[in-house]
Formats: sequence, C-alpha cells, structure tokens
Amino acid sequence: MHQAHIVGVGMTDFGVHETPLTELFASAAFDALDDAGVGGAAIESFYLGNAMSGQSEGDTHLAPTIASHLGLAGVPCQRYEDACATSSNAFKHAVRAVEAGQHDVVLVGGVERCTTTTGLETPEMTSVFASASHRQYEQPTGISFPGVFGLLTTRHMHEHGTTEEQLAAVAVKNHGHGTLNDRAQFGTETSVEEVLDSPIVATPFRLFDCCPFSDGAAAVVVANEDVAADMEADSVAVTGIGHATDVVPLAEKEDLTATQSARDAATQAYEAADIGPEDVDVAEVHDCFTGAEILAIEALGFVEDGEGGKAAVEGTTALGGRIPVNPSGGLKAKGHPIGATGIAQLVELTEHLRGEAGERQVDGATHALAHNLGGDAATTVVSILEGDA
Amino acid sequence: MHQAHIVGVGMTDFGVHETPLTELFASAAFDALDDAGVGGAAIESFYLGNAMSGQSEGDTHLAPTIASHLGLAGVPCQRYEDACATSSNAFKHAVRAVEAGQHDVVLVGGVERCTTTTGLETPEMTSVFASASHRQYEQPTGISFPGVFGLLTTRHMHEHGTTEEQLAAVAVKNHGHGTLNDRAQFGTETSVEEVLDSPIVATPFRLFDCCPFSDGAAAVVVANEDVAADMEADSVAVTGIGHATDVVPLAEKEDLTATQSARDAATQAYEAADIGPEDVDVAEVHDCFTGAEILAIEALGFVEDGEGGKAAVEGTTALGGRIPVNPSGGLKAKGHPIGATGIAQLVELTEHLRGEAGERQVDGATHALAHNLGGDAATTVVSILEGDA
Repeated sequence: MHQAHIVGVGMTDFGVHETPLTELFASAAFDALDDAGVGGAAIESFYLGNAMSGQSEGDTHLAPTIASHLGLAGVPCQRYEDACATSSNAFKHAVRAVEAGQHDVVLVGGVERCTTTTGLETPEMTSVFASASHRQYEQPTGISFPGVFGLLTTRHMHEHGTTEEQLAAVAVKNHGHGTLNDRAQFGTETSVEEVLDSPIVATPFRLFDCCPFSDGAAAVVVANEDVAADMEADSVAVTGIGHATDVVPLAEKEDLTATQSARDAATQAYEAADIGPEDVDVAEVHDCFTGAEILAIEALGFVEDGEGGKAAVEGTTALGGRIPVNPSGGLKAKGHPIGATGIAQLVELTEHLRGEAGERQVDGATHALAHNLGGDAATTVVSILEGDA
Repeated sequence: MHQAHIVGVGMTDFGVHETPLTELFASAAFDALDDAGVGGAAIESFYLGNAMSGQSEGDTHLAPTIASHLGLAGVPCQRYEDACATSSNAFKHAVRAVEAGQHDVVLVGGVERCTTTTGLETPEMTSVFASASHRQYEQPTGISFPGVFGLLTTRHMHEHGTTEEQLAAVAVKNHGHGTLNDRAQFGTETSVEEVLDSPIVATPFRLFDCCPFSDGAAAVVVANEDVAADMEADSVAVTGIGHATDVVPLAEKEDLTATQSARDAATQAYEAADIGPEDVDVAEVHDCFTGAEILAIEALGFVEDGEGGKAAVEGTTALGGRIPVNPSGGLKAKGHPIGATGIAQLVELTEHLRGEAGERQVDGATHALAHNLGGDAATTVVSILEGDA
C-alpha cells in the first residue's frame, strides 16, 4: 500500500464572496497547486465536496464544470455530499485511491456559498441546511440544526452538569484563536458576558454559540510517497482515516451525547495511525455550535466524558493548553462554508505540521487530527496527519 | 488486485412511486441482498447515487439515512452526484474499493423520484434537471436538456445526414424492447408515424424522442472473487470501468457530435477488460433522447461515425441484431429516475449474463457494456461485465 501525503494546500478567506463557485474554488485550487509546485497536467482525478449548491444556487454536475474551469477537463471527477462532512468524505476517497495506487496525484477540495450571495436569505438557507435532518421524522417538526445540536447539548448538560458559561467559554476561546487567523470570518474577541447576552437561537444556544453562514473554498493536493519526495513544499503524511455513521433519526440514538459515529471513526483512525488521543498535538474539530466541540473532544478521547465543558474554561483546549483545539478559530470563528469545511481543517493542520501557522503555531506539532461531522451527528470522518516537526 | 464481481441485483419497477426515497431504495436493496444470499451484516460500506433529492424533495445526507433505514447504520456511507451519471460513479468507487482490498462486500445503488410524487410539476422538475448545465453560460439562456441534446443531434444531422425518421427508429426499437420488460415505465409499442406526429419539445426532438420523468431505485452487491465464489447466485465479473469528463460548457467542445468523454471512457474500459467493441454481446446505453443513443453507439465503436441513425433503422441494435442495444427499453421506455439509472443498466446486463433476462435474453451473452452519461455529455462512465454464458 502506498502512503498518501498532502503535498499542497490552499484556501480562500472565509466570509462573503460574490464570485461564482467555479472561480471561488479556482482561487483555492490554484494556491494548492502552486504550493505543491505542480501544474494541472499532474492531476489525475478530482474529488469535490459540495453539499448543497443544487438547492442554494441551482448548480449541479459541479465537479466536471469546475474541472473544466481549472483546465483539468478529461480527468475523472466526482462530487460528494454528506452534509457538513462532505469534503472530508471526498478526501477519504482521494486518499484511498492514492493508497491503492489507482492514482499518483489528485486534487481534493470543497466549495460552498451559504450567505446572501446565493440569493437566499437566512431563513431560506436555514431550511436548505435542515434538509440534512430526517425528511419524514424530523423536518415536519420544524427542527433545524441549532435545534438538533441543542437537544444533544441539553442532554449533556443534564447528564454532566455542563453549563451555559462553559458553552460560552468555547466561543470565547475560538473567537480568540480567530483573531490570529487572517482567513477567519470573525477576527474579533468575544466574552462570556457577550455570549450570554446574545439572543437565544435554540435552547441552550445563543447567537454567539452558533457558527456563521459563510462562503469559501479549500483545496489540497494528495500524492503518493514517491511524488511527495519530489515536491517543493513540505508534505505531511495521512496516517489514518476513520469514517463511520450512526443511526438516523436522533430519536433512535442509544446515547444522545456519545456522538457514536465520532467514537467509531476515531477508533479506526487512531488504530490506522498507531497512536492514541494522548499523542495528538493539535486538532480541528467540528464546532458548528459550542456544544458540538464539547461532545467532540470527549468522543475523541482528549478529555473524559463529561469533562468537555471544563476543558474550555480551564484552557486545556486553548492555544498553549494541553491539547489545542481549533487554533484556526474553528467553524465558530473561522466560518463554515459547508462543503469546504473538512478540507479547510486539513489546510490548517498541514500548516501547523509544517511550522507555517504563524501566530497560531502549535510549536513542535507532529501529530494532528481533524474531526468533521455531518447531519444528525450521524456521519463523522476523522483524519490523522503526521509531519516531521 | 482483487477481481470485483456483481453478486446480487435488485430494482424496483420504474414509473410512479408514492413511497419515500428510503423505502423505495430499500425495496431494491433488499432484493439485491436476497439475490446475493447475504444479510446486511455482510455489507462493509454503502455507495449511494442520488442526483437531486435536495432540490426535488428537500432531502440530503441521504446515504446515512438510507443505511440506517436498511439496518446498516455504522458503515461508512457516501453519496455521489454527477448528474445522470450519478450511480455509475458510485459503482466505480465501490468497485475500486473492492479491487484494492479496502472492502470485501459493499452495497451500491441509486434512487430518485422525478415525477409529481415529489410535489414538483414538470416545468419545475425541468428546471431542477437544468441545474446540471452550466450555471453562468447556459442556464441564463433558458436551455434545458432536450435543448442540450437537441443541439448535439442537430449537428449530427448536419454532418452525417441523420434524419428524423432515424431518430424515431430508436424510439420504436426501445419501446419494442420495453414491451418485454415488466419493470419498464412504458410497456407499449410506438411507430415512426406516432413519433413524428408527436409535438416538438426541442428541435429536432419530439415528445416521443424524449425519455420520461420516472421514480425508481436499483441496487447491486459488489464483492471480491473469494466472496463471489461462495455466493448462491451467479456472479458476473466487472472487468473494466472507464470514467472521463469533457469540457463544459457545450460551446467549448471541439467536436459536438463526438461525446468525447464517452470515447475516452470506452477506451479505458476496453483496455482494462482487454476486449474491443466487436466483443460486446449486449449493451445498455444512455438514451435520454433518441439522438443520444445514436451518438453513444458511435462513440462506443459499435458502428462507424455517422452510421448510428442507420443502425436503428436496419435493426443492427435491436434484439436479434448484431449488437442489441438497450434490451431493457433503455431510458426511453424503461424510464430514467436519474440517480438510479446507472445501476439499473447493470442490473439488466447482469441478468443477460446470467441467462435470466426472459423474453429479452440475448442468447449466449458473455460480454456486456453499460454507458452512462451526465450533464452536457461531459461525464461518462463505461462499465464492462463478463459472465460465463
């Protein structure tokens, strides 16, 4: 089996972009190709993550269209959709193809616009997002994703005594990290008081517990060990990927706070990488809501079950802490252009493993983990990257 | 490298289905599992093709939802969208994973509803389909897919003298085949006169040149050679898959009638299977419009360029002819539930290779080919299956 490496990375700023999806993605993709030091002719296949441009922009069959725009027409193209885990799923398949020797060098990326640049206002976009909940059993209740994660988090508060202040501490941490990231949508600090004063969106989440709607794109070039050895930029090895699902709808979950698909995916990824959670130096996790980060760091084994809320308050997961989580600002402050999020996590982590993360750098990081979740916490992809320090 | 086999097949009738996507797919999937003689516990991964349920039914993150409905929650799930080539793309990735030894047994299928059961009327659904044309360069012109393939076919008529009567002969042939297929949406004969008397949809296509809007699902179980040897049902080997793209939009194509992605995909598939077009005993091709079948059989090398129209008139591509094309009735008569179409082609061909195709049986068929096309003729997947006769 070949060893897959990330050999080039690129991403746009996350925020508001008027440019069409093709051009938005091209900006990230050309940066990734330039970073790798390869031209488009080297790319043998294109893996695209895009969750909802059919619904939000009337734009489908997007992978070949983007490939054509990039000058890659001819290569096999595939679009993945798995709600918020969309581009991590594309990444997994790209890595598996390289591992199997089916391709030597491939392009993987994600793109999405979720702001009013699509022509949709926030209530309409909220409905588009909600299409990822169960069509028969959940959508008719009017629930949307703040409500889905609100239910999971409310149960965590009931079981473990997690507090609104602890939730707010996650937002404060990630906003703080975001101030160090030029690409982040929110570059401003917040405070526990400001979070707790913000309006309720869905119990227990207030506005500042929720990630924003964002436009953006991210791309990575994945190659085998031989190609990676010849590349100009530092490469990082993809040493483990786990991918698991959980029952849908929420009402059928055995344990609402376990996010079982994350535990299963993490187990697979740790085993493949031959490491444990204690070996991870830096992580990007799926903090679509503050409560989601708390569930994630427990599922990943960074803290004991029930200790996730305290971790944010005590600085365990802050830059400089025992296990820095979401140094990019996370979905909460960096932004969450759905189909781009999974790859953007990998861009951030690659920069840490290369020692190129600037003010956000986790010094000496050699092992990094990305956790990307979709739907009713029902899909999770966990990827582990390894660098040379 | 392992040898991938199709070890079980199932599909619903194509037509109008009131049942939700989960249940519609389950019907096909359980038939495929039963046919293979395996239970759900054997399935290691689930590959779903679904082109547009986000737009048409407000239903996304569908792969894990369907997996959960089937009792498969836990396994990695992925949804593919590549316009009308959607489920062939899913099939390719399933086969590659089995070939690489990443999985031993997987479930692959497609499901879609395109009729008024979705709540959308024909004009709205036509717009949903049109999202697969170029968002900036084509959609603003008002073109939809009858127009896209009408342009390609008009050029073929100009270059090769193809006539409306020849187009009609494709419809007559495929309707005739459809009368032998209980699962077909249209089980009635038509005539050249009836086709030519039907109203114009987009020059040169009349209503009877166009495939219908359909609901349906299809599924196959794919396994490696060891598992296949232990299965109850006859298995067929997947000996070649080609997958290529072409430039988008149409205006940038070098040759409008070549459907270059089909030629490239066919070349790859023939090379992998170590056969040529003369070795193919039966084929299912993407006849979304009568003209599309003519372009397809030329691109696949079944007839010389420019001879596709004559082939239908002369019976070359009819059951009993030199190379029977679309014995199922094709998209034209069997129906075209977008995301299910690619897998349904493989179900039909598997039945021929097993000698189980009933009145439609191509006697002694050992090599079968599926051609599934998406978007502006810009994605094509060609799959070659081999059986024991």
